[in-house]
Amino acid sequence: MYLHGRNVLKEILKLPVGDLKIKRVLFSDQKNTAHELELLKKRCKKKGYRVEYVTPEKLYNLSREKKHQGVVIDLKEFPYTDFEKLVESAKQKPSFTIALLDMVQDPHNLGAIIRTAVAAGIKGLVITEKSSTKVTPAVVKVSTGLAFRMPISIVTNMVRAIEHLKKTDFWIYAASMEGIPYYQTNFSKKSAIILGNEGEGIRKLVKRNADYIVSIPMEPGVDSLNVSASAAVLFFELRKQLGGE
Amino acid sequence: MYLHGRNVLKEILKLPVGDLKIKRVLFSDQKNTAHELELLKKRCKKKGYRVEYVTPEKLYNLSREKKHQGVVIDLKEFPYTDFEKLVESAKQKPSFTIALLDMVQDPHNLGAIIRTAVAAGIKGLVITEKSSTKVTPAVVKVSTGLAFRMPISIVTNMVRAIEHLKKTDFWIYAASMEGIPYYQTNFSKKSAIILGNEGEGIRKLVKRNADYIVSIPMEPGVDSLNVSASAAVLFFELRKQLGGE
Repeated sequence: MYLHGRNVLKEILKLPVGDLKIKRVLFSDQKNTAHELELLKKRCKKKGYRVEYVTPEKLYNLSREKKHQGVVIDLKEFPYTDFEKLVESAKQKPSFTIALLDMVQDPHNLGAIIRTAVAAGIKGLVITEKSSTKVTPAVVKVSTGLAFRMPISIVTNMVRAIEHLKKTDFWIYAASMEGIPYYQTNFSKKSAIILGNEGEGIRKLVKRNADYIVSIPMEPGVDSLNVSASAAVLFFELRKQLGGE
Repeated sequence: MYLHGRNVLKEILKLPVGDLKIKRVLFSDQKNTAHELELLKKRCKKKGYRVEYVTPEKLYNLSREKKHQGVVIDLKEFPYTDFEKLVESAKQKPSFTIALLDMVQDPHNLGAIIRTAVAAGIKGLVITEKSSTKVTPAVVKVSTGLAFRMPISIVTNMVRAIEHLKKTDFWIYAASMEGIPYYQTNFSKKSAIILGNEGEGIRKLVKRNADYIVSIPMEPGVDSLNVSASAAVLFFELRKQLGGE
């Protein structure tokens, strides 16, 4: 996949080389490029990434984005985290928060949720294999590159993932209209919050497996909140309650 | 402007006829349309709106949107609310919350902020004339039609608008990184929250006129939150503190 933009490259440069399958990093061949681009080129070379120079038109053709900022990254695939590994890494921590996205379909929403999750200190994100948007270039863009700071796992069976989390001391909270208000909920130090699909919400079978249903009380006559807005409210409540650890 | 979609039309139909300058409502001329569309046609005629039938291709050409759902509304202009009137309407209420957007430029952000504001019970929204996105068809779409439930005012001078609000017993809160945490802030029953531009934040002169600076504490190493995510956190804190009145 072709990613673009300086912030995305900066996030990628923070990661160990082995974590990513980078084919090439393409820079604009224009001479009067920004100083920042020169520094980024040096850092890419230092990391051993293959650097190529192409015309701005070529960058546009690859990224399909006018605001490519003079750089396009040719990445083989997004580095998803194995779900078992994510759960394993939580075991050693006194506090760990995860978001489970049950069939979130809009790339803009996923990107926004990732960005907010990183800012709120959520430690992992789980998406379903079926009927979910994966981490596409559009998702990376909306996340402002922060997708590379968030461990993201794909699971085939959300119910089984929930059962696994429960066995490792997680408490599961499903976000839904009919629950108790989020600010009256005492979130556990190990919390996983389920957010549902844009139209249908969380599937019944998934919701039934949650320990608690939490709601965001809202104005009468309004029947839903955008899933990324719900995520913002709930993630920062978690951060407030758990002290940002 | 051409708006599309059934939810948008439903919101428009809730408003008094005099509040809107509707030129025409265009429906698909296909015979096998949904029952819902038939009901909407009847309601449009009952309100005295001019109804026309065109091909689905024509609807697509007008709205530039494949998911037009068989209906396009031809509206002369978005019905903005006079700022003086907005402040006047607040005077009679014991509790009233307003969001002031200082040069928010992305239509997706404005649409998302409107949707969240309606859900959280914010009573009015103020945008700047300069360097702001106005209420475009894209904004209405992202707001899921809720833009028609929110009084939105355009002001030429944000500082003067703040001064006017202060004179009518409002307290002004600016959202910024260096403030006190939002959950340690006691919001007044008459609160106006300022949110800033996507890249630059709130202009200095505007910020200096706020009574309080409030922050959303976040993970170290993350320097900003999307403005619509910040809005979600702050608007629902307001709702929680003021009891959703």
